[in-house]
Amino acid sequence: MFTPSVRLGILGGGQLGRMLLQAAVDFDLQIRVLDPDPTASCAAIAPEFVVGSFQDYDTVYQFGKDLDVLTIEIEAVNLDALKQLQREGVKVFPQPEIVEIIQDKRVQKQFYRDHGLPTSDFILVDNREDARKYAGFLPAFNKLGKGGYDGKGVQRIVTPADFDKAFDAPGLLEKAVSFEKELAVIVARNESGEVKAFPTVEMVFHPEANLVEYLFAPADISPETDRKAREVAGRAAEAFGLVGLLAVEMFLTADGEILINEVAPRPHNSGHHTLRANDVSQFEQHLRAILNWPLGDTSAHCYAAMINLLGAEGFEGPARYEGMEALLATPGVHPFLYGKATTKPFRKMGHVTLIDKDADSLRRKVQTLKDTVRIIA
Amino acid sequence: MFTPSVRLGILGGGQLGRMLLQAAVDFDLQIRVLDPDPTASCAAIAPEFVVGSFQDYDTVYQFGKDLDVLTIEIEAVNLDALKQLQREGVKVFPQPEIVEIIQDKRVQKQFYRDHGLPTSDFILVDNREDARKYAGFLPAFNKLGKGGYDGKGVQRIVTPADFDKAFDAPGLLEKAVSFEKELAVIVARNESGEVKAFPTVEMVFHPEANLVEYLFAPADISPETDRKAREVAGRAAEAFGLVGLLAVEMFLTADGEILINEVAPRPHNSGHHTLRANDVSQFEQHLRAILNWPLGDTSAHCYAAMINLLGAEGFEGPARYEGMEALLATPGVHPFLYGKATTKPFRKMGHVTLIDKDADSLRRKVQTLKDTVRIIA
Repeated sequence: MFTPSVRLGILGGGQLGRMLLQAAVDFDLQIRVLDPDPTASCAAIAPEFVVGSFQDYDTVYQFGKDLDVLTIEIEAVNLDALKQLQREGVKVFPQPEIVEIIQDKRVQKQFYRDHGLPTSDFILVDNREDARKYAGFLPAFNKLGKGGYDGKGVQRIVTPADFDKAFDAPGLLEKAVSFEKELAVIVARNESGEVKAFPTVEMVFHPEANLVEYLFAPADISPETDRKAREVAGRAAEAFGLVGLLAVEMFLTADGEILINEVAPRPHNSGHHTLRANDVSQFEQHLRAILNWPLGDTSAHCYAAMINLLGAEGFEGPARYEGMEALLATPGVHPFLYGKATTKPFRKMGHVTLIDKDADSLRRKVQTLKDTVRIIA
Repeated sequence: MFTPSVRLGILGGGQLGRMLLQAAVDFDLQIRVLDPDPTASCAAIAPEFVVGSFQDYDTVYQFGKDLDVLTIEIEAVNLDALKQLQREGVKVFPQPEIVEIIQDKRVQKQFYRDHGLPTSDFILVDNREDARKYAGFLPAFNKLGKGGYDGKGVQRIVTPADFDKAFDAPGLLEKAVSFEKELAVIVARNESGEVKAFPTVEMVFHPEANLVEYLFAPADISPETDRKAREVAGRAAEAFGLVGLLAVEMFLTADGEILINEVAPRPHNSGHHTLRANDVSQFEQHLRAILNWPLGDTSAHCYAAMINLLGAEGFEGPARYEGMEALLATPGVHPFLYGKATTKPFRKMGHVTLIDKDADSLRRKVQTLKDTVRIIA
């Protein structure tokens, strides 16, 4: 049933929450946001903004207890409070049990193995000394079980000497795979079990920051690979029994194999282009999924790219944007600023979507514009 | 210069202001909204919402005096306050002198005549008795000079006996023209003088409510007529010297003539489809124009329609929405609710955009869906 006056809460008030709020305006939802930072991206535009920690049991419980639906825009939230709210009848999507699996990369990887979902080979390790036993498994990535994000919590281990850099904490060794492309699929599943995946996209990472620098949609892959990637993403969402969005990052290996790298149970950087290129955006789709409305058509009406706007190196302080006029003057190009007052090196300050009817023209636009905007202080 | 932290004020907190706010999120603008109704559409989502009358000199002056830019979403505002703010250096767009011309239909019509802009023939009348002198001019429409909106303030006068219904106030008699279609063009002009028009659309009016019931974009007219309509709209914006959006409603006569009916210097119902069908929406374009940024590409990527969601006859009270699931389940269909708590007959409660690659399929969708949603209490 369509209930526009549903009381919806979001844990986390960053840019993902901000874009969820923006999408929610169309449906007249009553939204409340929790974030410890009173200047968070959502603060100025949330109908109700509560300052407090989403990691604190009491804060989350009090925030959520009179809501109809509670969702997250960040995984590092207090799961005990979410489980209690769920027991008391609040719909919590994604479900806390799933967030718990995903929060710990060890459990997440084991989940793929147990459910026959394709992923690279791995060994669980308890600490640095434990890791040293597996020199024969190199080259590998040593990942922290908990707490890593945006490239933090990952170490490349090529030779046994590199084990000195390994994390001295529970983690895993993940076989380094030689891949052709990094792909991502965002899939939605609503409470009734309807599943829809957006077309597969291709991510290009910033060599230093280890963040997505830009992406192309759809990925330049065969229809068969696209189908396979979407199918894997859909199977993952169903294996979890997830309600909401699942962003599935994958490797495409040289022999055409799809391997799940990692997932996020929420809107994701790899879906920002949908704000301009698709019938529904990932943010609207997330709302449809968690409110158990029919999912939107995921098809795109053009080629699209997305460029992250990262704080320039060497600048920290109140943000200023150079070069925005050139962006605004280019057809099909649209900036999204996240409302963060201060910049620092590689901080995600916004993103740009680019759309075009022609893939080559789009790629040229990305090359022209990717270094046009500089965010300085 | 791109200044994301510009302080922008909006007079009026209805649905047009709401969609302006939503567009402004992408640019991180600091927005303040003034409306007398504490439950207005903008109230919950405005970064700053001030309750007060936009028709009161002091309220408007105090609201505006520390803003960089001030705009409107309704014409019935206190122009003296706006003129004073303009003198004190606040950028007021559209300029109050232009709003003053448009506020009075008599002055507006005379403006078209003086500037060689095509419009139907008319006679200014002082009151009902004065109007009676012009029986030879019938059939005509008697329009109030000031205060009419959404079909109010208009009387059809066919025979001399109909003069009994004429307004006993300053107004005009406008020659009834036999037209093929009602068209509209939304054109933007920024402070640097850049002008861009959206493609011409075609409006279908609700027979009883005299409100736009639905529209098609682009209009089913020849490329030559589209060019002519956009050119007339552009000439009107330039004749006014307007900064912002001008929504130009026009008649297309049987012999292919374009006649300006009336204009609104702001986002308009006839441009809502641009939220989904065009590279930039009319709301983003309005922001670009008044902030003197490069105007966005106005091209559409598909056929589009827009259906207004009006309160059902016979219902008044807290709004409930029947039939929304069917809308949400149809590809390319997107509801926009205005956040109005209470419905009444024919009140504009929201709208629906429909997009399709095929014009016939789109028209079928409109026919199927136009009576699907009922807003009851």
